[in-house]
Amino acid sequence: MSSPNLRALLQAVQNGQMPIEAALGELDKQGPEENLGFAAVDHARAARQGFPEVIFGAGKTPEQTAGIAQSLAARGSTVLATRVSRAAFEATKKVLPGAIWHETARCLVVPGADSPRLEGRAGVLCAGTSDLPVADEAAVTLQTMGVEVFRANDIGVAGLHRLLGRLDDIKQCRALIVVAGMEGALPSVVAGLVSVPVVAVPTSVGYGAAFGGLAALLGMLNSCANGVAVVNIDNGFGAAAFVASMMRSS
Amino acid sequence: MSSPNLRALLQAVQNGQMPIEAALGELDKQGPEENLGFAAVDHARAARQGFPEVIFGAGKTPEQTAGIAQSLAARGSTVLATRVSRAAFEATKKVLPGAIWHETARCLVVPGADSPRLEGRAGVLCAGTSDLPVADEAAVTLQTMGVEVFRANDIGVAGLHRLLGRLDDIKQCRALIVVAGMEGALPSVVAGLVSVPVVAVPTSVGYGAAFGGLAALLGMLNSCANGVAVVNIDNGFGAAAFVASMMRSS
Amino acid sequence: MSSPNLRALLQAVQNGQMPIEAALGELDKQGPEENLGFAAVDHARAARQGFPEVIFGAGKTPEQTAGIAQSLAARGSTVLATRVSRAAFEATKKVLPGAIWHETARCLVVPGADSPRLEGRAGVLCAGTSDLPVADEAAVTLQTMGVEVFRANDIGVAGLHRLLGRLDDIKQCRALIVVAGMEGALPSVVAGLVSVPVVAVPTSVGYGAAFGGLAALLGMLNSCANGVAVVNIDNGFGAAAFVASMMRSS
Amino acid sequence: MSSPNLRALLQAVQNGQMPIEAALGELDKQGPEENLGFAAVDHARAARQGFPEVIFGAGKTPEQTAGIAQSLAARGSTVLATRVSRAAFEATKKVLPGAIWHETARCLVVPGADSPRLEGRAGVLCAGTSDLPVADEAAVTLQTMGVEVFRANDIGVAGLHRLLGRLDDIKQCRALIVVAGMEGALPSVVAGLVSVPVVAVPTSVGYGAAFGGLAALLGMLNSCANGVAVVNIDNGFGAAAFVASMMRSS
Amino acid sequence: MSSPNLRALLQAVQNGQMPIEAALGELDKQGPEENLGFAAVDHARAARQGFPEVIFGAGKTPEQTAGIAQSLAARGSTVLATRVSRAAFEATKKVLPGAIWHETARCLVVPGADSPRLEGRAGVLCAGTSDLPVADEAAVTLQTMGVEVFRANDIGVAGLHRLLGRLDDIKQCRALIVVAGMEGALPSVVAGLVSVPVVAVPTSVGYGAAFGGLAALLGMLNSCANGVAVVNIDNGFGAAAFVASMMRSS
Amino acid sequence: MSSPNLRALLQAVQNGQMPIEAALGELDKQGPEENLGFAAVDHARAARQGFPEVIFGAGKTPEQTAGIAQSLAARGSTVLATRVSRAAFEATKKVLPGAIWHETARCLVVPGADSPRLEGRAGVLCAGTSDLPVADEAAVTLQTMGVEVFRANDIGVAGLHRLLGRLDDIKQCRALIVVAGMEGALPSVVAGLVSVPVVAVPTSVGYGAAFGGLAALLGMLNSCANGVAVVNIDNGFGAAAFVASMMRSS
Amino acid sequence: MSSPNLRALLQAVQNGQMPIEAALGELDKQGPEENLGFAAVDHARAARQGFPEVIFGAGKTPEQTAGIAQSLAARGSTVLATRVSRAAFEATKKVLPGAIWHETARCLVVPGADSPRLEGRAGVLCAGTSDLPVADEAAVTLQTMGVEVFRANDIGVAGLHRLLGRLDDIKQCRALIVVAGMEGALPSVVAGLVSVPVVAVPTSVGYGAAFGGLAALLGMLNSCANGVAVVNIDNGFGAAAFVASMMRSS
Amino acid sequence: MSSPNLRALLQAVQNGQMPIEAALGELDKQGPEENLGFAAVDHARAARQGFPEVIFGAGKTPEQTAGIAQSLAARGSTVLATRVSRAAFEATKKVLPGAIWHETARCLVVPGADSPRLEGRAGVLCAGTSDLPVADEAAVTLQTMGVEVFRANDIGVAGLHRLLGRLDDIKQCRALIVVAGMEGALPSVVAGLVSVPVVAVPTSVGYGAAFGGLAALLGMLNSCANGVAVVNIDNGFGAAAFVASMMRSS
Repeated sequence: MSSPNLRALLQAVQNGQMPIEAALGELDKQGPEENLGFAAVDHARAARQGFPEVIFGAGKTPEQTAGIAQSLAARGSTVLATRVSRAAFEATKKVLPGAIWHETARCLVVPGADSPRLEGRAGVLCAGTSDLPVADEAAVTLQTMGVEVFRANDIGVAGLHRLLGRLDDIKQCRALIVVAGMEGALPSVVAGLVSVPVVAVPTSVGYGAAFGGLAALLGMLNSCANGVAVVNIDNGFGAAAFVASMMRSS
Repeated sequence: MSSPNLRALLQAVQNGQMPIEAALGELDKQGPEENLGFAAVDHARAARQGFPEVIFGAGKTPEQTAGIAQSLAARGSTVLATRVSRAAFEATKKVLPGAIWHETARCLVVPGADSPRLEGRAGVLCAGTSDLPVADEAAVTLQTMGVEVFRANDIGVAGLHRLLGRLDDIKQCRALIVVAGMEGALPSVVAGLVSVPVVAVPTSVGYGAAFGGLAALLGMLNSCANGVAVVNIDNGFGAAAFVASMMRSS
Repeated sequence: MSSPNLRALLQAVQNGQMPIEAALGELDKQGPEENLGFAAVDHARAARQGFPEVIFGAGKTPEQTAGIAQSLAARGSTVLATRVSRAAFEATKKVLPGAIWHETARCLVVPGADSPRLEGRAGVLCAGTSDLPVADEAAVTLQTMGVEVFRANDIGVAGLHRLLGRLDDIKQCRALIVVAGMEGALPSVVAGLVSVPVVAVPTSVGYGAAFGGLAALLGMLNSCANGVAVVNIDNGFGAAAFVASMMRSS
Repeated sequence: MSSPNLRALLQAVQNGQMPIEAALGELDKQGPEENLGFAAVDHARAARQGFPEVIFGAGKTPEQTAGIAQSLAARGSTVLATRVSRAAFEATKKVLPGAIWHETARCLVVPGADSPRLEGRAGVLCAGTSDLPVADEAAVTLQTMGVEVFRANDIGVAGLHRLLGRLDDIKQCRALIVVAGMEGALPSVVAGLVSVPVVAVPTSVGYGAAFGGLAALLGMLNSCANGVAVVNIDNGFGAAAFVASMMRSS
Repeated sequence: MSSPNLRALLQAVQNGQMPIEAALGELDKQGPEENLGFAAVDHARAARQGFPEVIFGAGKTPEQTAGIAQSLAARGSTVLATRVSRAAFEATKKVLPGAIWHETARCLVVPGADSPRLEGRAGVLCAGTSDLPVADEAAVTLQTMGVEVFRANDIGVAGLHRLLGRLDDIKQCRALIVVAGMEGALPSVVAGLVSVPVVAVPTSVGYGAAFGGLAALLGMLNSCANGVAVVNIDNGFGAAAFVASMMRSS
Repeated sequence: MSSPNLRALLQAVQNGQMPIEAALGELDKQGPEENLGFAAVDHARAARQGFPEVIFGAGKTPEQTAGIAQSLAARGSTVLATRVSRAAFEATKKVLPGAIWHETARCLVVPGADSPRLEGRAGVLCAGTSDLPVADEAAVTLQTMGVEVFRANDIGVAGLHRLLGRLDDIKQCRALIVVAGMEGALPSVVAGLVSVPVVAVPTSVGYGAAFGGLAALLGMLNSCANGVAVVNIDNGFGAAAFVASMMRSS
Repeated sequence: MSSPNLRALLQAVQNGQMPIEAALGELDKQGPEENLGFAAVDHARAARQGFPEVIFGAGKTPEQTAGIAQSLAARGSTVLATRVSRAAFEATKKVLPGAIWHETARCLVVPGADSPRLEGRAGVLCAGTSDLPVADEAAVTLQTMGVEVFRANDIGVAGLHRLLGRLDDIKQCRALIVVAGMEGALPSVVAGLVSVPVVAVPTSVGYGAAFGGLAALLGMLNSCANGVAVVNIDNGFGAAAFVASMMRSS
Repeated sequence: MSSPNLRALLQAVQNGQMPIEAALGELDKQGPEENLGFAAVDHARAARQGFPEVIFGAGKTPEQTAGIAQSLAARGSTVLATRVSRAAFEATKKVLPGAIWHETARCLVVPGADSPRLEGRAGVLCAGTSDLPVADEAAVTLQTMGVEVFRANDIGVAGLHRLLGRLDDIKQCRALIVVAGMEGALPSVVAGLVSVPVVAVPTSVGYGAAFGGLAALLGMLNSCANGVAVVNIDNGFGAAAFVASMMRSS
């Protein structure tokens, strides 16, 4: 709670406008959460960060995923869950019939009461066909968070004209998510041609000395072009959440 | 060159308004560069990316740094050079007396004809006193690129109240650069408390299993908080260039 | 055998109070073990370390696990086995009907003749729902070793108020086990807020550059907060055994 | 601030016993700090954690180290600084003539108003002569924090009788810090022989595939003996701080 | 488009010999591609690089592989797909009945209108029987690209006479692909005995500290013999594509 | 062929005692091999190294394993194959009914015409029950190569008396193979107590920061005790082959 | 010695045309070497591989470098030494006054009796000014081995037009050496635009997660473009030696 | 103390032949050591392991090295110290004038009362001139331990005839130490040609992806030849100590 608000609250207590219990309740709202035992759902996140808590499906049982989704939906929040198995989707569908399944992206969405709408278009580019699941995760996340998306697939640097031919569209985006595996050179090349920020997503596509995406990750972190920042390997969601926060902050 | 521009140029050639040599020259401007032998200075970068080429001083002789700086300044560009030794600064100062030296940041600046001014303030936070050189590099870069900067130093998670006490100022920034070494936990904690994007900069501060910044880098890439993207270890410049491109694109 | 005891024994031999065979037997008791061929069960461990040998179930056949359990139980020892498959539990249940199965924790317990009871409560905190199996292994181990446990789940740094809201309870523990995957920041933040020792357990929860728990492990080893020590990735048992030895030694 | 305290404070405000400014001040004390610009000294740490902020000297200028030391000493706190160069010691000595220099341990101490005294002795064991600086850092830290220390040097596993001959003394410690480089086997062997907790400190002593202490670190994390936790490579301070917090919490 | 060609085109536009639309079309041909949505097939590659785009089958669905193959075959191009599953082969066979399946090599080939034929023979040597799949991938690729192949299998350095006995044949090749796992010493030994270039292919054959081919890769990169260059682990295709480009360029 | 032998052969050719074809045949015997296409069986190995070629079963089809075994057995050689699947054993059993299967050791043996018998006993010690497959592979290899074996299982350093109680037997071995996973401390401790050479075998037993045996490997390479050499992770065969060559060379 | 030559030699011995000593001498020439004690100079290398032994200067004393150079020059061989310090150059200059020093390339050359001259031009491209020493080493090696060189410096992917503007010249080379640090993307982009083979040289230029050239190395090994092979980090010599062997073999 | 000896001692006590103090003294001799404070010199090592404690000079002050040397020499033991700086040699020379300095090997030797002499010759081979310091350390150690040494330098696999020409001498050794940097292929090739055991020593010679000897280490651990065991990078001493223990045990 910010200092001016705190002062106001104390004044309200002092002059009797606010009973102590109400003041305690108000202070409590700084951190409202719902304790499900296995999870402490963070209902304050939308107010604090502009979008409700997103469920990371990996390592959770279908019942846990469904339970958290229900807790969020009960307050009207938009539900987004990533890395969701078909079983978890089905468990959620039973309790939230409006749940939608994005198979390639492995994402589950339950639209909330009021969908956000942010200004400006973001581009999601990917280097190869095998990078599609990660690019789809980014695109679904952006759209669920209210960002319009431009897509360009399979435009890796081995055939540079495929990228150059789409430059006009790409330059009109306010931010770019560039997804690539193997040597991960695409973000560097794109960032050298445009003036908008590039969020690079390394993928685990490749083999041998790709070391599960490490080669692409290191390549992107060492980009010689300016305006590139990087998220975790295969983390299409993280890139999109970052871009959405950019959109919100401007 | 975008398709509509190309059509216009061809029409001008067709109807005789533009001589062939002029058209060739125009097409040439897509990639104007000055060849210094050891360097091919990219004079098109400001037009393409919003800021002139920045000199990466490491691994260059003082003469090479001074030579590139002179080539840029000759066209009125603002000169920014990072990782600059004192010797390289002095070599540059001889040919460009207006050169300014930021010692902790290891940056050299020669103000250009028209300084850019971008809207919105960026925060540069750092976890410990030993992270100051990297934070300074970020701050000098931001200011040279026209971004107003809010600073908060030594607010690492071992004494959380130091961060919490500055939250109101931090929340008013449009983007945050968060610099930390050791376990690199500060960006995660900050990102969990604000809604603006966080660009995390791992530093090589630490010892033993810090492995020269690797621990902090991995920590930041795996942040459980949303809205975090990462740049290379000790890359204060890269974080600032990314934030400046965000500011320009909105 | 300590020097005074040895002198006493030799005196007893010298003055005929103790026959040579008895003396040899006494010296033998320094290292009593039962040789099962595939295993040399260490029956001296409880005397030496305060708790009987614990069976590490991974890489053992169900028959081997059941055999060692039987050897321990035959002397009245409490049996604790970790990383136990359902098959190994069932094999053990056949020979030791009192065996209890903790499924999430993957632990098997056969209560011994006299259960230990240690003074002081230990806290087991975990950052996310996916860290529960490791936290459960720690809790089951602590309880089997006679330590009372306080639990708090899903209180990671992305929603700091969930931790802050439980601080009063946390501060009343004599030691804390803090379990986290991804960037593993929770132990640092907790240790900065309390004065009790924090045993950090990195988990393999995460993906990409989490590298199977390496990111969390490095983060915890480089904690900027004081009072943090670390055990192996996913080693809830090891953290609990350490805390129990702390409790015993005070 | 804990919930009961907060209620009391609000009641005092409500009934006029406490003016608003005083209440704000009280709330402020949650995070008292002194802002030196380059550092935000955490004066609340002793109250929160039982010992004042310790200065990590690496990467700080002599002036910065001296400045923080002065800020701490001004409030009567005991000053402990680790990884301190001779230059930093001399800079501090000028402003704090009572400063003491532990050369091998690279530690600087300025005794505070009231020295703490904790109950129980801790052992500091090291495997080889080359590990002495790390063991000394641990011992100086323990003593400064009020813990009595038992030392045993050069008792590595290549000559096991050197360890076995000191077992009686070792077993009388309440906790052990075991320092070793190369393969780092000593903590495992010690932990197999005693019932007290062992805090293992890997050192960067060794060469080739020791990889700067990585071999010892991994060995200690994978100890087959129970009751072992690990701190960062060469982190004698961290081990001692952990043991001191154990002593305080019992 | 090269400068002289561009001048000619502009002159043709200027003097009316070429309508603007035709000129735009001509400029367009720099980067002809077919957009399948999930893939942007690069039909310019044969003209640019001497061989049509090769399909990397890993991470693609059978339908995607078959679709790209069809797109290539429709223009008469030879189709080569590597890392192809049986399912992908069968999906392709349905739409392109002439598809041939090389099981050990995991390659699919559809012969094109005019098969290339390059001058000079290349050798494909492998160290052990377990390296055969990688060696076969190299051999199939070379043959599909028009290069005659000499094979020698299981001639690793543990039995040097097996290599020495084949030296005469080996020396008559214009280039050698040497495939080896484990310590990967064969390329060094071969390169020390011949004057032709050696393209080394590390394989993931081995276990333990082979780390999935890393040991062989590092060994080959550090070869003390001259004339060795290296491709990715298990990348028989890459080695063959490199050798084919050598054959084309002479 | 050694220089004196070569001179003798040339003299025999010169004076007509040896026809050219015979001389060529004699020179040929330097490297006799049988080419099976997928394998070049090295029949000279027993003469060169004291034991016939051993089949490394991993990565070979059952038919390939059986084929090489048949080729060796046809000349009366003892057949030893390691890392052999049950399927490969059964394929071999069909063509060589005398084949014996060691299940835990994953080894296949077909006794040859004359079994070797080497002087001196070797010890095979292992730290834990989970290390048994590797220790068994070493023991089967030693016995097949004619070395008598002493075994001691589950004598890891967590219960040191189990090792100390067997020291007398251990000291009577001419060489020791010491197998351990986790931190791999056993070889160091053993080597500190005996004067015979210790061949250390790290195993992949462990989890988390054991990194598949890397921790044990590094520990053994950095042993502070003298007289330790190391083989690859899980390479029981390699350790035994090394010890057998020691036995042969004395 | 090949089989037909051996038969001929034996026939010459049989029919008395060649005395035994001459035959021994002939057989000896397979491996002529000069033993300097600290070095065994391989004088057969030019005959075997097309160029005399090249001296790797690192880790040798100036006297050792000069001694080997003298041994080579005494037989009229061209001397090339890489990684040579100024001291080693001066020691060599004393005994071989014709020695030439390439400072940036750290190479020493003593022209031999007959300089080789190979057909075809090779390109040496580098991404940044800081990569010049490695590119120079490659260029000096190529020229010393008789290959004509085309150079293009500082044409990294951050300013793509610098590369595109030189494509016509680049395409006329028979092979390309592409030198780059940081993310090492240049070889991929070049290989996608040309049909000639690309030998990629990663450099240690960069910082942080560049890990001394590892990022660039991994990027190049995982290139998505065909026709790329890789040599060791900073190994300009190795790339050039490989290209020269290509030139010789065609 | 072995069981029969213990029984005898007890009988001697029982029948009064041995006073208790004498028995205690006898038991004490199991672990005689001299405590220098910074070091616990292990005077039992020669009896236990066949050679006195060897001083590892790295990380010790000159005074510490000299002190331990003096303690050993005082009992007539041969003194061997490795990794010794010139300063440490000079400090030792002052107190032990008979000290000898092997500069390249960085070893210090003080001959003891009776020099050991072991039967059988050992070979020390090295791949390149830059590996000489490590090979010299091995040779000095062997000779000091009483083993006769055969040397062959600079016989790496790039010029195989240099090795083949020395095979007759090499085969007459009872054991081989093979030292190599870069890719470390020499031990594999040697082990394929001989029947004696090969102890491989990787060196840190090389650059780039040699990673300080890691490439050679991994190569040697993965040797496809039988009869190879490995010691730490640059550990010439360790290899020699292992070979000496082999010689002693036969």
